[in-house]
Amino acid sequence: MDLVRTGARVKTRVEVPDDSLFGADNLPYGVFAPEGQHYRVGTRLGDSVIDLAAALGDPEFAEPSLAALMARGPDHWREVRERIRELVGNEIDSAAVHALSEVQLGLPVPIGDYVDFYASIDHATNLGRLFRPDSEPLLPNWRHLPVGYHGRAGTVVVSGTEVIRPSGQRRTDSGTPDFGPSRRLDIEAELGFLVGVGSELGDPIETGEFAERVFGVALVNDWSARDIQAWEYQPLGPFLGKSFATSIAPWVTPLAALESARVPTPEQSPEPLPYLREKEPWGLDIDLTVSWNGEVVAHPPFSRMYWSPAQMLAHLTANGAATRTGDLYASGTISGPEPDQRGSFIELSWGGSEPVLVGGQKRTFLEDGDEVVITASAPGPGTGRIGLGEVRGRIQPARRRD
Amino acid sequence: MDLVRTGARVKTRVEVPDDSLFGADNLPYGVFAPEGQHYRVGTRLGDSVIDLAAALGDPEFAEPSLAALMARGPDHWREVRERIRELVGNEIDSAAVHALSEVQLGLPVPIGDYVDFYASIDHATNLGRLFRPDSEPLLPNWRHLPVGYHGRAGTVVVSGTEVIRPSGQRRTDSGTPDFGPSRRLDIEAELGFLVGVGSELGDPIETGEFAERVFGVALVNDWSARDIQAWEYQPLGPFLGKSFATSIAPWVTPLAALESARVPTPEQSPEPLPYLREKEPWGLDIDLTVSWNGEVVAHPPFSRMYWSPAQMLAHLTANGAATRTGDLYASGTISGPEPDQRGSFIELSWGGSEPVLVGGQKRTFLEDGDEVVITASAPGPGTGRIGLGEVRGRIQPARRRD
Repeated sequence: MDLVRTGARVKTRVEVPDDSLFGADNLPYGVFAPEGQHYRVGTRLGDSVIDLAAALGDPEFAEPSLAALMARGPDHWREVRERIRELVGNEIDSAAVHALSEVQLGLPVPIGDYVDFYASIDHATNLGRLFRPDSEPLLPNWRHLPVGYHGRAGTVVVSGTEVIRPSGQRRTDSGTPDFGPSRRLDIEAELGFLVGVGSELGDPIETGEFAERVFGVALVNDWSARDIQAWEYQPLGPFLGKSFATSIAPWVTPLAALESARVPTPEQSPEPLPYLREKEPWGLDIDLTVSWNGEVVAHPPFSRMYWSPAQMLAHLTANGAATRTGDLYASGTISGPEPDQRGSFIELSWGGSEPVLVGGQKRTFLEDGDEVVITASAPGPGTGRIGLGEVRGRIQPARRRD
Repeated sequence: MDLVRTGARVKTRVEVPDDSLFGADNLPYGVFAPEGQHYRVGTRLGDSVIDLAAALGDPEFAEPSLAALMARGPDHWREVRERIRELVGNEIDSAAVHALSEVQLGLPVPIGDYVDFYASIDHATNLGRLFRPDSEPLLPNWRHLPVGYHGRAGTVVVSGTEVIRPSGQRRTDSGTPDFGPSRRLDIEAELGFLVGVGSELGDPIETGEFAERVFGVALVNDWSARDIQAWEYQPLGPFLGKSFATSIAPWVTPLAALESARVPTPEQSPEPLPYLREKEPWGLDIDLTVSWNGEVVAHPPFSRMYWSPAQMLAHLTANGAATRTGDLYASGTISGPEPDQRGSFIELSWGGSEPVLVGGQKRTFLEDGDEVVITASAPGPGTGRIGLGEVRGRIQPARRRD
């Protein structure tokens, strides 16, 4: 029914500066809505968003979620990426091109299960020193398996969603808890991995299947209320100290864009058990930047992570646990060995005892109105770099006080 | 288009013996499929299942999930229950009546987030004694808050689903783990609570809102691999020791059917913080029965639970965490003070040191081929009792050995 289509379409070439982190070698996927319109799938090119349903004429991208694309697997992902690369190499129907600043970005996919790992040896060592100063900082299991736990999938929110300061039971010096707004609200700078092709119950995923199962990578900020966490977490782990909000970037970078970022993990000693060994490396040379009220306070290096994301997924499913399209697992806080490489404020301020200068003020944990922005980039093909979409959040005052 | 409908409909009266646990005072909801047909919503009456879409002519029940019904809230739940009570008091179109033995029962609703609590003081004390024999069995936080953690929603399976023995890293006496099938596979007899009407981020649910938010109750068996759990769980809690499978009963008993079962919780000392106090009691006098290969081995009493399900939900959301239709939270293992009231085999066999007689054999943990069935009943109106649907599972051999 093309009867009402009239006139020639206007074509445009999207200009991308040479130093853009979002050139034709990147092409992340996201879900966006032009003003007053519904959400659909797009890719980012420079500071533009390209409507893939409109530009490719493919209804798969008219959905408000990446789920259909993600579920179809690596052959389809390659084919779609090739079509998009061809598309952006030519002039595009201008109706399919939107300014990034004029669209709303949505959650890329409904999250199935959310697992958070603890895969940075520097982070785990720092937290061990802070929480258990009289013992070995790493617990006996740490070098044998990627320690992880389930978080709350229903409170994974897209970047830009305001974060309401949680209230909860706080440990006090008397040994009896009180209740109130967290006084030690923190961030955790992480990378998240989104499962595209799920797996059945009883069917573990091998490390070598990583790129067939995982669709892409997105930045994550796993907001953490350290005082709530410290009181509640024995013996079953973090719960309300984490479950109030986890922010995820709107742009999912496909693994194909990260080929030049692949590096071996640091040496693992002792050698992991067979199910955790990798034939090809899935460490990633991705550099994060953490900004606190506009001031850069840390540069966490993902290349230092002890466990690779392929090992995390093999571990997550080693017991036969099933996975689903949209399952998210995150790396845990990314920290390096240097003080300015720490991906959480409890580490940067050493448990609050060594304040950080932010805008000339001494700061430890988050205050109401604070904004944190995490960005990242990785080597692209040749000399260029590619960017991951940012994850941003601002702290709103607690709503509940007793 | 009723042109092909011919002749009079056959009406039938469903016979229910006086001592049935599934009479007109019960009327749980479930999702079922007659042979070769699709899943739809039904209720159980005696040993029959009534197709509610067919019997009430309401398309709300033609869906393969209780989600639509659950999301509509307590006024609607009351109204639907009244319609069903009227329906079963009369003759029913026989095309809407199926023998329970001839239908497949499905997962009642897609699970959003799954939280597992640890709310039995007898269970927590037993596990404290077994795991930390030289310290106080209850940790300092236990009497201040319902300890809980997130489990894996994607591996919640309906009763009858076979449970494949998980493999994983097992603690050994050398301090170095090995990998293989769990040797300490266990059950946890629990009650699960299904959220009907969800809540927004930043909007905690008060204890008094419990019956407006929670749709109903279902039996849960939270299968647990104790050797995997013991090695992995520090410091972030249980993960692969639990995530391979959690079984849930197919029948969801609405809270309205449990009015006569409501009892106060045992005395809570110290008095809980204000957000955990209850104006009206939501303890539940529900008696469970655990059968191992057909032999009854335990009678866990839910009335002994220290924390009520209303307190659990208030705690779960105290930090502002959102909830969704289909969120499941379970009580944790239900144990009473007597040896035959323990709801897990690690307690019944006291860590494996005191075998249980099952079919004349000394047994500690689950062997391949073992079947566990958990049932429960509660006081109904008058002198009768109502039953909860059973949760059943049989252990299949491990698929993976290295």
